[in-house]
Parts: sequence; C-alpha cells; structure tokens
Amino acid sequence: MNYMLKDENAIYYECGYSCDNALYIRLGTDAFFITDSRYTIDADENVMGAQVVINGDLYGEAAKILHKHKVKKVIFDPKEWTVAGFEKVSQNVKVKFKPELDFSHKKRIIKSDEELKIISKAAKLGAKAFKHLAKEFRKNGFGKDEYTLTHIAKGILGDFGKYELSFDPIVAINKNAAKPHATPTSTLLEKNDLLLVDAGLKYKRYCSDRTRTVQADKYFMFDTHQSFKRKKIQKAYDVVLKAHDNAIAKARSGMKAKKVDALTRDIVEKAGYGKYYVHSTGHGVGLDIHEMPYISTKSDTIIEDGMVYTIEPGIYIPDEFGIRIEDMVAMVDGRATVLANK
Amino acid sequence: MNYMLKDENAIYYECGYSCDNALYIRLGTDAFFITDSRYTIDADENVMGAQVVINGDLYGEAAKILHKHKVKKVIFDPKEWTVAGFEKVSQNVKVKFKPELDFSHKKRIIKSDEELKIISKAAKLGAKAFKHLAKEFRKNGFGKDEYTLTHIAKGILGDFGKYELSFDPIVAINKNAAKPHATPTSTLLEKNDLLLVDAGLKYKRYCSDRTRTVQADKYFMFDTHQSFKRKKIQKAYDVVLKAHDNAIAKARSGMKAKKVDALTRDIVEKAGYGKYYVHSTGHGVGLDIHEMPYISTKSDTIIEDGMVYTIEPGIYIPDEFGIRIEDMVAMVDGRATVLANK
Repeated sequence: MNYMLKDENAIYYECGYSCDNALYIRLGTDAFFITDSRYTIDADENVMGAQVVINGDLYGEAAKILHKHKVKKVIFDPKEWTVAGFEKVSQNVKVKFKPELDFSHKKRIIKSDEELKIISKAAKLGAKAFKHLAKEFRKNGFGKDEYTLTHIAKGILGDFGKYELSFDPIVAINKNAAKPHATPTSTLLEKNDLLLVDAGLKYKRYCSDRTRTVQADKYFMFDTHQSFKRKKIQKAYDVVLKAHDNAIAKARSGMKAKKVDALTRDIVEKAGYGKYYVHSTGHGVGLDIHEMPYISTKSDTIIEDGMVYTIEPGIYIPDEFGIRIEDMVAMVDGRATVLANK
Repeated sequence: MNYMLKDENAIYYECGYSCDNALYIRLGTDAFFITDSRYTIDADENVMGAQVVINGDLYGEAAKILHKHKVKKVIFDPKEWTVAGFEKVSQNVKVKFKPELDFSHKKRIIKSDEELKIISKAAKLGAKAFKHLAKEFRKNGFGKDEYTLTHIAKGILGDFGKYELSFDPIVAINKNAAKPHATPTSTLLEKNDLLLVDAGLKYKRYCSDRTRTVQADKYFMFDTHQSFKRKKIQKAYDVVLKAHDNAIAKARSGMKAKKVDALTRDIVEKAGYGKYYVHSTGHGVGLDIHEMPYISTKSDTIIEDGMVYTIEPGIYIPDEFGIRIEDMVAMVDGRATVLANK
C-alpha cells in the first residue's frame, strides 16, 4: 500500500518522530520522512523505518520521490492536505491520488498494548493533577477570576512545564459552565459556586482528558460524589452521573457507537433534560485529543477491544449552570475499563 | 470583489469576530459569517458588517450561498483551505474559484493607525513582561531547568492568565540557544550562563515578539547591553547587536525587503559569521505572529509606511551557543521606529 501523510501525529504514529514541517511517504515497504534542515539532527536520531530526506521544498521533494519510484496510486487524506500543498505534489506527476478520509485515524482506532500503557499513564497523571488542583483551589482559588484559575490549572496539569497539555483547560464557574466550550471570564470563584474543570495533559505525546463538576466548598475534591446546595443543580447532577455510570457499566465490544451514546442519552432524556444535552457522549483519545471512535447518535462504528474513548454526558441550562462528568475508558475483554480512578 | 476565507485571523480582520469553526464569504458589498450553533450568541453580538448564518455544515452552506447569489468568480487562498473543505464548497456549484496565495496577508500588510496603536501596546506589554521575567529569574531561576523556566516565562508573559501568548516562549541556555527554534531540555540555569529568551503575548488578538540574549549573572536585565565573560561570546554578541542596530537605523520605506535583510546580513558576513546566521532578518507581525513582509534575502516586497516587522539577526555556533536580538519596528515617516524600548 502507498500513502502520503502531512499531519504531525499521523506521521509520528508511523515512524516515532515528527515535527511541524514534515511529510511522510510510504511506498510498499519503503518509507520517506521529508523535512527541512532545521530538523536534520533530530530526524536522523529519531525517525524509525524511514529514510530521512532533507529538502526545504517538502512538496517538490515528495513529487520527486513519487516520480522516481514510478508510483501509480497513492492514498491521502483530503482533510490533512491544503489545496496549495496538494497541488504542488500532484501537478506534475502521473499518479492517481486516492482520497481517503480519516486514513490515519482509522489506522489508529485500535490501540496496541504499548499505546494502552502510555494512555493509561497519561490518564492517571491527569487524575493526579486534578487532586493537586483541588488542593490549590481550596487554598488559593477563592476570590480569583477564571483567567487566573485557568492559568493555575495549566501550571498544575503540566506539572509546571514538565508535560504539554492536551488542550487549554476549561475552568468555568456557575452559568459560564453552561457553555460546553467556555472561555475564561473575569468571574471570581466564591464559596459554594459550581465549578467545572475540563483538562488533560500529554504523556509521551498521548493525551488525557477529564472533566469534573463540583460545589466549591471548603473541603471540595474533584470526585464524582458531590452535594450541591441548590436542589435544581443536584437533580441535574445526579442525572448526569447516572448516565455516565450507566454507559461505563454497560458499554460492550461489539456494540455500535450510537448504542453506547444511547446509554447516556436515554437516561438524560427520560429525566427530561434531553434538550440540554447538546453534544455527543464522547470521542476517541490518542495522539489527538479528538479521534475515532466518535460516540455520537449517528455513529455506526463497532466498538472493539483496544479502543479508547471518553464518556462525558452533560446538562447545560443556559444562563444558569452546566454539568459535565468525563472519564476515559479503554475496551478490555469486552467491557469499558475506566483508565484512572473516578 | 468576491472572496471566501477560512483562516481564523483572516476572518477576524474582516468582521471583528472569529472562532475556530467559521467561514466568511464576501460578495461585493454583501458578506456572510457562517458558523455552528455553539457560537450563535457570540457571533450575533460581535460580527460587524456581515450576516451571521448558523449551519453545522459550513461548507454546504457556503456552496448554497454561492449558488443562490449566482456568483461567477470567487477568490480563495489555497493555503487556507483543505482539499476536503474546498471540494465540499466547489463540487456542485458553477463558480470559477480563483486561487490567490496570501490573499488576506496581502490585505493586512499595511497596518491602520488603530492597528498600530494595538500592536504598539502589545510590544510594550511584551517588553514590560521581560522586565518582570528578569526579576523573577534573578530571584528564583537559578538551579531550575528549561522546562520550569519556560513555564515561569509563560505565566509572566501572559500576566498569569490575562493575555494569550503569541507562541510558546523559547528559553534556552548556552548551547541549547544554538537551535533557533529550541525546545526545552532538563539543562539547569547556572550563574553566568548564556540565556536566550524569545517570547511574545497577544493584546486584542495582535501579537508581540521579542528576543534577548543575556549573561545570567546576579544583576542581569533583558537589555541589549551585555557583558559576557567568554570573549568568544562577546565578540559574536557585538556583531549581532551591530547588525540589529544598523538595520533599525537604516531601513527606509521604498527599500526592497531584501535590502533591509542585507543591512543585518552584510555586517554578520563581513565579521566572518555568515554561515552561522541561518535565518532571515525578520518577519511581519500582526494578527499572525508570522505574516508579510518577510525580511529575507529573496524578498522583493517594497517596504512601506505602516508595515510592522521584526529585526532579529542571530549567530548560532552549534554545540556552543546561540545569540539573537529581536525588536519589532513599525515604518513611520519613512523610517523604522522601535515599538518598545530596547
């Protein structure tokens, strides 16, 4: 099989190295890693199973390689390539370029044992960071705004520079949590506020992802057992937790992803919150923070052992509050195993 | 003129708002901002001079608009669009799509007075952050590794969550500074080490960018007057500073960008360091951290009043040390004005 890759994580998956300016071409058993001279030393040291080719004109070099090897057909993912980059590679060669959406993501949907170990470690480091974060917020978080709290979260999640983050953490108070992708505001954290934190870090390039919603009282922890003073919040919280626990308990290999989605959605809908559950149940996690399988109402993907994804139901009442509880699971022996302690 | 944009900053420039999932179409005097329902409220409140259209299928909606308005020709930048996205827009409409590389960057190359004010403020905030950073490093930086120092730099540059950063700061010690795009290592900062910091922040979405190379002694500051104990370093440093100052003093509107590049390069080459100056003199700065004009050996762009760019010559001796001094300038009344105190 012949294929060419542009995406940084797609390339890393193939050869154990990548950088922000590289192309990867696989032609049967041969492979080529093309980058510019800034990365010569790092590429030579780290690329496995591919020849390192240095050329500032990456796309021109790719075209040359395709021409030289008399390639007839090569697969590419049209989501990975810009119109400009693809044209440079394709304009002067007689090659059939076969578009295949999500080509690399499909290859990566089942994690190897080695990958599962790394992701599991990432998830555990993420959970540990949430513990530290709770301690820090209890001590120094009250009276600080979401900008500052987000900054504190970044420091603790990344262990102060040791780890990269999976994404910019979400730290949202009360009604700001009603936006699933909230960005920071100047709202200050006060005692007994609802506090939602969605955050993750990267360990050996693999992502973690976790969300907790808590009542920020004097002794709060980012666990799933929460007692909210406002009954309306507690009621919604209990529904989200039940939906979350139900999917973890009942997800099975062999199910369609939309069936797993229904394991959370049915509970939320039956409780009358259907219209406030505005997103999917979850998404795959790996080198990318969002990858396959997507656990949505429309996904016919069959869940299999070795898949890793999030279970993250939520209820969002506009201008009032938002609740989400998210854990990462891996399918092992047919069942969903939570990757870090709840 | 008709054009369609995908890039977040390109769209922001047109209508004062953008988000990570949007398209913008301009058809003569009409304009359309297409996004999904997560951004309805924000888009309605902030988009200026364009009709907000909500549709999860952005590309399909774009095709619909082009079809409905019987558009004959529309400009797009093939670097902005993925093959997949462009195909979705173009496959079913009878429109001539005219590729124009750097379409938005070309529009943005001359900054308005309002933009100059904002960029100037960004640069000044950046310079101020370097002062704070020196203080913090003098007090608490010695004995810490590059990971931790980078984390500290992020906090101070962003004023602990208040500002986004232009890019991940570079904090490089001794030989690590010899890589122009150094990433952190476990090297510890010790007294009298060479320390290079390249960092910037965003103010109202506009970027700042600044580099200083210093001898990290007890009283060091991130200014351009440095005394290195190693003569070899001081010699190279003086060459870089001379090149930097020369370009700032002699750059003129009406010159080609490659002439400005020569104002630094000739000095470095004459001093015998030519092969250690491995990059261009500078790059434009605005909504993007790298935009036009590019101050390189090959650029025929004519420098004009209102352009903003960096002057950042460097000398990189592999496995020994690297030096770079970078300031942002704006062309005003024919000359280069440094945007923040040196």
